Amino acid sequence: MVQMRELDVIGQISGLLGWDQEVMMPPKAAAMRAEQLAWLSKEGHTRMTTPEVGELISAAESEVNGSEVEQGNIRIIRDSYDKATKKPTEFVEEKARHTSKSIVSWTEAREKNDFSLFRDDLAKMIDMSRQLAGYLGYEDNPYDALLDLYESGLSVAKLDPLFQGLRDSSVPLIKAVSELENKPDCSWVHKHPWPKASQEALSQAISEAIGFDFQAGRRDESTHPFCGGSNPDDVRWTTRYDEKEPYGAIYGTMHETGHALYEQGRPRDLDFQPAGEANGLGVHESQSRLWENQVGRSLAFCEWSFPMWQEHFPANFEGVTPEMLWQAVNQVEATLIRVEADEATYNLHIMIRYEIEKKLINGELEVDDLPDAWDDMYEEFLGIRSSTRTEGVLQDIHWSFGAFGYFPTYTLGNLYSAQLLQAAEKDIGSIDEQVRRGEFTPLLDWMRTHVHARGSILEPSDHIEEATGEQPKPDAFVAYLADKIGRLYGV
Amino acid sequence: MVQMRELDVIGQISGLLGWDQEVMMPPKAAAMRAEQLAWLSKEGHTRMTTPEVGELISAAESEVNGSEVEQGNIRIIRDSYDKATKKPTEFVEEKARHTSKSIVSWTEAREKNDFSLFRDDLAKMIDMSRQLAGYLGYEDNPYDALLDLYESGLSVAKLDPLFQGLRDSSVPLIKAVSELENKPDCSWVHKHPWPKASQEALSQAISEAIGFDFQAGRRDESTHPFCGGSNPDDVRWTTRYDEKEPYGAIYGTMHETGHALYEQGRPRDLDFQPAGEANGLGVHESQSRLWENQVGRSLAFCEWSFPMWQEHFPANFEGVTPEMLWQAVNQVEATLIRVEADEATYNLHIMIRYEIEKKLINGELEVDDLPDAWDDMYEEFLGIRSSTRTEGVLQDIHWSFGAFGYFPTYTLGNLYSAQLLQAAEKDIGSIDEQVRRGEFTPLLDWMRTHVHARGSILEPSDHIEEATGEQPKPDAFVAYLADKIGRLYGV
Repeated sequence: MVQMRELDVIGQISGLLGWDQEVMMPPKAAAMRAEQLAWLSKEGHTRMTTPEVGELISAAESEVNGSEVEQGNIRIIRDSYDKATKKPTEFVEEKARHTSKSIVSWTEAREKNDFSLFRDDLAKMIDMSRQLAGYLGYEDNPYDALLDLYESGLSVAKLDPLFQGLRDSSVPLIKAVSELENKPDCSWVHKHPWPKASQEALSQAISEAIGFDFQAGRRDESTHPFCGGSNPDDVRWTTRYDEKEPYGAIYGTMHETGHALYEQGRPRDLDFQPAGEANGLGVHESQSRLWENQVGRSLAFCEWSFPMWQEHFPANFEGVTPEMLWQAVNQVEATLIRVEADEATYNLHIMIRYEIEKKLINGELEVDDLPDAWDDMYEEFLGIRSSTRTEGVLQDIHWSFGAFGYFPTYTLGNLYSAQLLQAAEKDIGSIDEQVRRGEFTPLLDWMRTHVHARGSILEPSDHIEEATGEQPKPDAFVAYLADKIGRLYGV
Repeated sequence: MVQMRELDVIGQISGLLGWDQEVMMPPKAAAMRAEQLAWLSKEGHTRMTTPEVGELISAAESEVNGSEVEQGNIRIIRDSYDKATKKPTEFVEEKARHTSKSIVSWTEAREKNDFSLFRDDLAKMIDMSRQLAGYLGYEDNPYDALLDLYESGLSVAKLDPLFQGLRDSSVPLIKAVSELENKPDCSWVHKHPWPKASQEALSQAISEAIGFDFQAGRRDESTHPFCGGSNPDDVRWTTRYDEKEPYGAIYGTMHETGHALYEQGRPRDLDFQPAGEANGLGVHESQSRLWENQVGRSLAFCEWSFPMWQEHFPANFEGVTPEMLWQAVNQVEATLIRVEADEATYNLHIMIRYEIEKKLINGELEVDDLPDAWDDMYEEFLGIRSSTRTEGVLQDIHWSFGAFGYFPTYTLGNLYSAQLLQAAEKDIGSIDEQVRRGEFTPLLDWMRTHVHARGSILEPSDHIEEATGEQPKPDAFVAYLADKIGRLYGV
């Protein structure tokens, strides 16, 4: 239907404006950009909520024999229509406007290490998220309504035991590693600075090698790395550079390239159709985690990429072996910054945010108490405490655009990625061997076929089952982590 | 009225997408970008042509006592409404889509020096422009309908004698210069390459010095320099770099900064109102020409900027004096590229395009004959002939987006700029003396007050009269040129 096509175009334009806002826009343009995004948001909401769409969905639902694509389209449009019609147009527009404003104050607060600059905009964003939960409706917990926005059907009742299970398996591992007396010596990383220009060149080379098409996308720099853009022909990802160490930039590159490959692999015969979109955040994150961690942090990848590292950083790599690189990119250690955390501690960062979000949305935690509550939980979960707000509560962009309920999908992504890789290996043989030879095409092709090209025809959990033969489970990830830490540390 | 506010927002978004297309967009994204721009164009057209707007204008017109701003708004909306309602929505949408496609093929044709790659898209664009003239209506000449799009009330009948007058005054000057035996020696320019990074740094420094606010805008690189963006808080100009000589980049910078200063100086109390927009292309061009030529190519500016040139290009400037710089940036010589032409020959480049456009639109010249016709006219007017299409008929972007009737406004800009500078000097004293001291604020403030802040409240010619006390005339420009060439060459 024409409304869906227009909605898609509106989404493309908003995507581009959002990218520009983070990467290119001059600071004084923030207020006018907010007007532009608010107008687009209103136009989208109007199209989504027209009674004609409701009638068309009802008519389509009564036809039993649609193809799986048609059924997928109807399911998604019904869900979007129900969600959209529950929200007043004015609310949608105000939230979009507030989002633009709030991203700017978060950026400034983060730069100046001053939570008070963000405090009021965050408080309003939390209020608006509670309001949103009220509009959408929920059974047990207002936070459920928000979780469902990012992964259909997700709830506190489902996540609490899943996260508890992961916590039970990873905390002993982390503890065992932290008690080791002889850990690999990674001091070589800090012997020399890592020139930004070389990081940029390596970032570009690795993204190209994995398979990103730079004729249909861009690499840029932004405060918080992200993958955005506007459609499969125009996918734009970013990373950030730190001359003290290169792994944030390079593994950020692999992470965002994973997202970007998913977007570039969407089924083009379903352009402008909801079923042609990527399938929710958990599956999206499975693709970024796959390339960043499962592939990127493997010994095989370190062996293959080693000559490139040597070429771009000759001084830094004097006397270094591929195994030392592998150890350096897999240091299990409690650290402050989520996006730089290792695979074992990462999920604890997520659990902290999950616990805090539950409390903020349920009114059990006030904004003014948030910065200290954040630090207290880092002490409790990871045994460390940030001395700055920038590295504490201000580190993530998500809350500045009201994305409460989003963080848990990162951990879902970890589970899905391990499960998908296990399934791919059954079909195409040892991925380690291929990666060691720099052959990324078989794995990418498998993901193209089983994940990317399937759009969102099926619901995420059914999609995972189609691809792997099983509903989502933590087992593959738990086994992967135990094996890797065993090989790294002998525990 | 709400439609005007929305139209303004749509224009802002289209402006940003257009900028992105020229500066950032990956090549494969062209088709989808065309969809996005076509949708915005259609949304704008729909709002402009709703019968409600027609009724609101008629009602407003019947009230006699509106302020000058209200009268300006009504005049502009009436003109836009009449122009828009004469064009079918489908035509508007198709033209927008074809424009995006055609810009891409022009870019490729220009890069590959192959007119045939652009030929079909150009032929269709000419047809569409004729169609457009038919929709808009005209009395004597279909080309008049197109001229009127860029400068209200302009026509062949008005331009022919004006251009003839200019031609009569500039051809003898150019001839006298070309016959000189001893011209200033500018060979120093080609002794050393001009590093791009230094050109970029000088470009930035000069734009800042003149008064461009980089907190509310950007500088970038593109094939064809332009000033775009989205609103006074987000003005984006571009330039291009050639390591063989720096003047294209630096005077391109001053030109686009002139446009950009105008946009940044628009009256903010008239945000979202038509009368708050810049006042048509002739006045816009007066601002770019003012800074590029009247200021930038003066001996005073060369004296002031000399230490900056020396700082950024120490090798190139060894043994060079400010006067030699001034001679080098004012070489009167017949050359192939319009945007690099000197002030004396520039208007002849415009006259060539004007004569060709008249013939193309009237069907007196076929597309297949165009490349040679172009070269023949360069031979006739300037005595030179291009050996490549890239430096011939493919040099300008304008036809790729259907801007027939646009070129003459460049020459109007020359006339206005000289007339405005004459008037400013009466108010604020010797501009040469101020420029020599690097004091650009008095001149910018005068332009802010008399040009920028007046938006488009008055029609262009009345605006010029308000600012200078006289309707537009060529006299100031003719006198300025004769004086300058006299001082440079003693003719």
